[in-house]
Amino acid sequence: MHLGLFVLNTGHHVSAWRDPDTAVEPATTLRSLTHTARVAERGLFDTVFFAESAGLPDLDFETMSKSGRGVFIEEPLTSAAAVAAVTSRIGIVVTQNTTYDHPYHVARRVLSLDHLSGGRVGCNLVTGVSDVEARNFGFDGIPDHAWRYRKAEEFCDVVMRLWRSWPEGSVRPDKATGRLFDPDKACALDHRGEFFKVMGPMNLPPSPQGAPVLVQAGGSPAGRALAARYAEMIYTVQNDLDAACAFYRDVKARVTGFGRDPASLKVMPGLSPVIGRTRAEAQERDVQLKALTDPALGLGFLQNWIGNDVDLASFDLDQPLPQTLQTRFGTASLQVLLEASRTMTLRELAQYAAGGRGHLRVVGTAVDVADEMEARFRAGAADGFNIMPATIPGGIEDFVDQVVPLLQARGLFRTAYEGSTLRGHLVD
Amino acid sequence: MHLGLFVLNTGHHVSAWRDPDTAVEPATTLRSLTHTARVAERGLFDTVFFAESAGLPDLDFETMSKSGRGVFIEEPLTSAAAVAAVTSRIGIVVTQNTTYDHPYHVARRVLSLDHLSGGRVGCNLVTGVSDVEARNFGFDGIPDHAWRYRKAEEFCDVVMRLWRSWPEGSVRPDKATGRLFDPDKACALDHRGEFFKVMGPMNLPPSPQGAPVLVQAGGSPAGRALAARYAEMIYTVQNDLDAACAFYRDVKARVTGFGRDPASLKVMPGLSPVIGRTRAEAQERDVQLKALTDPALGLGFLQNWIGNDVDLASFDLDQPLPQTLQTRFGTASLQVLLEASRTMTLRELAQYAAGGRGHLRVVGTAVDVADEMEARFRAGAADGFNIMPATIPGGIEDFVDQVVPLLQARGLFRTAYEGSTLRGHLVD
Repeated sequence: MHLGLFVLNTGHHVSAWRDPDTAVEPATTLRSLTHTARVAERGLFDTVFFAESAGLPDLDFETMSKSGRGVFIEEPLTSAAAVAAVTSRIGIVVTQNTTYDHPYHVARRVLSLDHLSGGRVGCNLVTGVSDVEARNFGFDGIPDHAWRYRKAEEFCDVVMRLWRSWPEGSVRPDKATGRLFDPDKACALDHRGEFFKVMGPMNLPPSPQGAPVLVQAGGSPAGRALAARYAEMIYTVQNDLDAACAFYRDVKARVTGFGRDPASLKVMPGLSPVIGRTRAEAQERDVQLKALTDPALGLGFLQNWIGNDVDLASFDLDQPLPQTLQTRFGTASLQVLLEASRTMTLRELAQYAAGGRGHLRVVGTAVDVADEMEARFRAGAADGFNIMPATIPGGIEDFVDQVVPLLQARGLFRTAYEGSTLRGHLVD
Repeated sequence: MHLGLFVLNTGHHVSAWRDPDTAVEPATTLRSLTHTARVAERGLFDTVFFAESAGLPDLDFETMSKSGRGVFIEEPLTSAAAVAAVTSRIGIVVTQNTTYDHPYHVARRVLSLDHLSGGRVGCNLVTGVSDVEARNFGFDGIPDHAWRYRKAEEFCDVVMRLWRSWPEGSVRPDKATGRLFDPDKACALDHRGEFFKVMGPMNLPPSPQGAPVLVQAGGSPAGRALAARYAEMIYTVQNDLDAACAFYRDVKARVTGFGRDPASLKVMPGLSPVIGRTRAEAQERDVQLKALTDPALGLGFLQNWIGNDVDLASFDLDQPLPQTLQTRFGTASLQVLLEASRTMTLRELAQYAAGGRGHLRVVGTAVDVADEMEARFRAGAADGFNIMPATIPGGIEDFVDQVVPLLQARGLFRTAYEGSTLRGHLVD
């Protein structure tokens, strides 16, 4: 089983920052970031993961001032490099945007990070999630889904070619002869596509792990296709077990379709645990966080998640959402929402979302959490999990101290790092 | 006096990497980067500085394979963040490009770095130097100088407004009330200019030092004007003492012209020392590096420096360059070159450039170096120096161990850090 930690400020519960045990200090400070990463490394996690949104979740300042988490989100490149400097084994995944950035910049920065970390880096490419973000980059709103994915595909292709633009063994500095590389093996990329014109090659030597690992987080058909072709890890939102297994089978079949070994892509659904020494204690923690949460916050989160072209305020809070809803934004996110909407009212859905950002939640003891993980792992729903603790660092400390030993005792999780690169960690 | 260290791979001499004492390991690895930054911090330097070029110096692989330094150059954002994580007082300056990047990205990443370092960051904005770099970003060659500077001015303006987009005191997370910031003080930027449309505000809290420090490195009139308006440090290439004093006076007068205190902008020319216990030892080191240098390398460096639209191979090596030369590229660099060309043949010029990349070189004892620095400082040619050691880390270790104590004994340089932010270090 593989484990990732999704680092997000003071935790994934919308009210984590108001928890009395959580430092108000944001994760943008070195101290809290360093501590969190080291706890995950102590827990032998495969990765720490940094998301990205280059914009506020909203421009309604009155509402946003009360929404806590997600207003100020860590910048992934700089956070990851700081983590690389204070850890030695754990993998580090950074999110980069294909709609508002340039492939040469992304390839160069992520590859530099890979050098600094000694080959421990992965890159999660996303196409953007919100109108507010788009408006920071010259757009009036988020561009069309198909256009973004067409651009993402070309972007991804260029980045991967830049990472491999110096063939293995071509860069061998030789003090005696004064040769830095073999000129016969060097060549330009000269890419000319629909969106980008990139000469290359990369002005950094090749990666210590061959190339950074490509990670994919989109769950839409276009996202799955991209993942199946290039990615070695896929992050996903899965609540219902059957749906999770179906997603797993679908993705693995697509991987095989591209002539790849299905084991070469790890499926890592999100899991947001609230752990107590007893179930009662876990419930109490959850109730405590819930009490700190304005009911409007969950709804606000759902609103951001599915995009602003659907007005959730226009629906009855005590009814499920109509299954006919459509959006220009995260189509996979909406799918998950509608799935959950079969058994929950909009009010319940909002409550749930405030707790785990739409991801599977387990509120219980370490045994409960380990049981749920084992069951899903054995059922063929996951190769591992991206852990999204309700509070950070408390929630990741609890997980590492209480859940990891159970997974190890059951023979499900490593008891020591074997490799020194991220790609090495992903070998079963 | 203020001191900066210009970090560049294994050093500024074109053959530094071939020096027997220099690790072949590039500065892209954490170990060498960490060591170098810590030495500079031990020497109480104001800053470590990271340049940037998002492209190879050339596409002639045969020549480039023998050119060593400058082929693979450290990526500044990730290198700086790693340095921030392992240092606690020294300032860190990163170079970012205004022609190929976006102001929201640059503002966000540099501000994040400023948070991670506790307010120790400066940002050097450049407009690009080479055709090869331009060709990695969709251009056929570097765009027109005036166009780049018009874009840079708007870019700079947007970045600075994004850094200040949350008024002081507006972000005060309050666990009791659940308020993260004061919504009445928040406002969007809604910038609409010739080049950029940026909504803002920044999705990070304000900087621990108010805002990152703006640094400027261009020496052209447009560059000086930009520096005079916004910058707190200016890097410059100055060899001739009179020319250096004239530059200093010109820049300070421009600062005053914008209603600013002339002391608020520090003029920091580059200085490339080769230090020996005796003058003979220093000369020997220099000769040793020279012996490792293919004569074509210096010429190649000059070629890159002034741009590819002038073919230096077409000039007589044993004559000075004609004073009528013109280029589309670094006009200030060409100026420096023509200045030096009054007393040197092209061959001598190339030799000199291979040693210190066109910057003032001092080959001698620590006393010689300190004397030269003191003389220039007292003559009104500099507020400090950007040290460009011929080899790294050897050259910076020598400087810190031998020159810094002399400067301190003469009352010219601090004996302890007083402030904890970069802006704090720049106070006289």
